[in-house]
Formats: sequence, structure tokens, C-alpha cells
Amino acid sequence: MHNRGMEQRINFITLGVPDLEAARRFYVDGLGWEPTLEVEGEVVFIQVSPGQLLGLWWADKLEADAGAAGGAPPEEYRGAGMVLSHNVDSEEEVVRVLEEAVTAGGTILKPAERSPDFGGLHGHFADPAGFRWEVAHNPGWRVDADGRVHLGPVP
Amino acid sequence: MHNRGMEQRINFITLGVPDLEAARRFYVDGLGWEPTLEVEGEVVFIQVSPGQLLGLWWADKLEADAGAAGGAPPEEYRGAGMVLSHNVDSEEEVVRVLEEAVTAGGTILKPAERSPDFGGLHGHFADPAGFRWEVAHNPGWRVDADGRVHLGPVP
Repeated sequence: MHNRGMEQRINFITLGVPDLEAARRFYVDGLGWEPTLEVEGEVVFIQVSPGQLLGLWWADKLEADAGAAGGAPPEEYRGAGMVLSHNVDSEEEVVRVLEEAVTAGGTILKPAERSPDFGGLHGHFADPAGFRWEVAHNPGWRVDADGRVHLGPVP
Repeated sequence: MHNRGMEQRINFITLGVPDLEAARRFYVDGLGWEPTLEVEGEVVFIQVSPGQLLGLWWADKLEADAGAAGGAPPEEYRGAGMVLSHNVDSEEEVVRVLEEAVTAGGTILKPAERSPDFGGLHGHFADPAGFRWEVAHNPGWRVDADGRVHLGPVP
């Protein structure tokens, strides 16, 4: 298997964090996410999709491992240019999940508002390291039982 | 459903790119990944896991949408602090996928070498916008038929 080239597949999303305990408090203690594997003081892996783990790892180690000469980026650029989205089934749930993220230790970047792009309600928060999440209800988004995603055309 | 709080789930990974056509050439034309939805000149969505799409969107629009006041980050900090990983079944495949990424327009950041962390072979490349990917063969990594990931303890 897997001889057709690079498949369209992501198995790990690893976030380099300056404070692993703070990241763990947010995702594991705060949001209640269950680690698949953790090595205390070293790394935490959490399943976020079939076949896929979210990794929380020390920022300096991630940079060195990825071949970066300059070390970890300045705080204001952590996760720069990227957003992770969590889609929910109702507008009420958008509001509730944003509140829950704040309770867990996240910071609101954009309160829930209507998206001009897909018409649903969404808002953004940052985790303690500054990585950005969107929480969204998109009426044109659907996932089949087999995992296939359908997305209505952008209006 | 979905009333238990924020589930451990990522539905979109959206990368803000300075040149959407360059990103499309790499992922769609180069790697051969099939878009689930694309709006020409605007956005491209590609399924990368069950229930999950990779989004390629203009960097300035992503920042404005996420509530960032400062606009798109400097080029050298795009995707800073984060790595996306693509796991494969053999060491030979690590080498082959890295070559394929280069052919598609990617740039090698670290050639294939043995990881001191998990003992397998891995290497890193950057996409045309600078987002970083790891290609890895980890002998301790396994995905069950139902999508559950198993990961051996870090040595």
C-alpha cells in the first residue's frame, strides 16, 4: 500500500509550546481531552481525527528537530498564518465552546459573529501558547458517516 | 449530540498563503491532491483526514478573519512553531515522498535522518509558502481500522 505518491493525509499536527505544563493544563485539564500518549515533562499526544494526533512539544525541541537554525519564533509569531477550526452543529454551540475555551485558559481573539464567507456563526480564540482556533457553525458543512466532508460553495 | 463540551476534534487546518496559485500548484498539481471544494482565485479545500479539510486561503484574508490587527506575518514566521506530519510505512517511502515534495516545488529543510526521539527515519520540507511538513516512518506508530492511533512510548 501507499505506493501512489504522497497521499493527501496529515497524521500529526505538532505545536511547539514554550510551556508544556500550560499547554497540558489547557487541552487536558481544561478541555478534558484525553492523551493517547504522554511522557511527563516531555510531550503530549492527543487524538483529534481518525488517524491523526495533535502533538504538544517544547518549542525549542520542535524547531531543532525540524532543522531550523534560529530556535523558537518570537511569541507574537507562534502559529502565524495558520488557524485550526472546530466545527459544531449549532450557533448556540459556537458560543458555548468559546466560553469553555476561555474557562480552560484560552483568550478570545474574535467574539462570535456572522461570517461573510460562509454565512454561519464563528469566533476565534488563542490557546495559552498563542495558537489560533476557530469555532464555527457552517450550515453548508457536512461529514458523512465514512468521514467524507461536504462543503457548500462559498456564497 | 456534541453537548459534552469542546470535543477533541479538528475539522479544518487553514493555511494563509501569500500566493494561492503557488499553493495550488504545489498541493493540487504537484502532489496530485484532489480539492473537495475550490473557488477559483479565492480558496482551496482538500480532505486530509476523515472529517477534516486542509484549507489554502489568502494570508491577508485569514488574518483579518481571525481578528488579527497586524495583517499577514513576515514570510520567515509563516507557520512558525508548527509542523504537519505525514507518516508512511517504510524508510524507503520517507525518501521517496521527500523527493516527490521537491519535484512538486517544496524545499528540503532537513534531509532524511534517524530521529533520536522515535528511532525511525524522518525528514522535513517546506511548502512554497513556508509551512513545514515532516515525512516520517515511525515503527512504533500504528492506526487501527477504526482510525484509532497507537504510538509506542518515546525511547
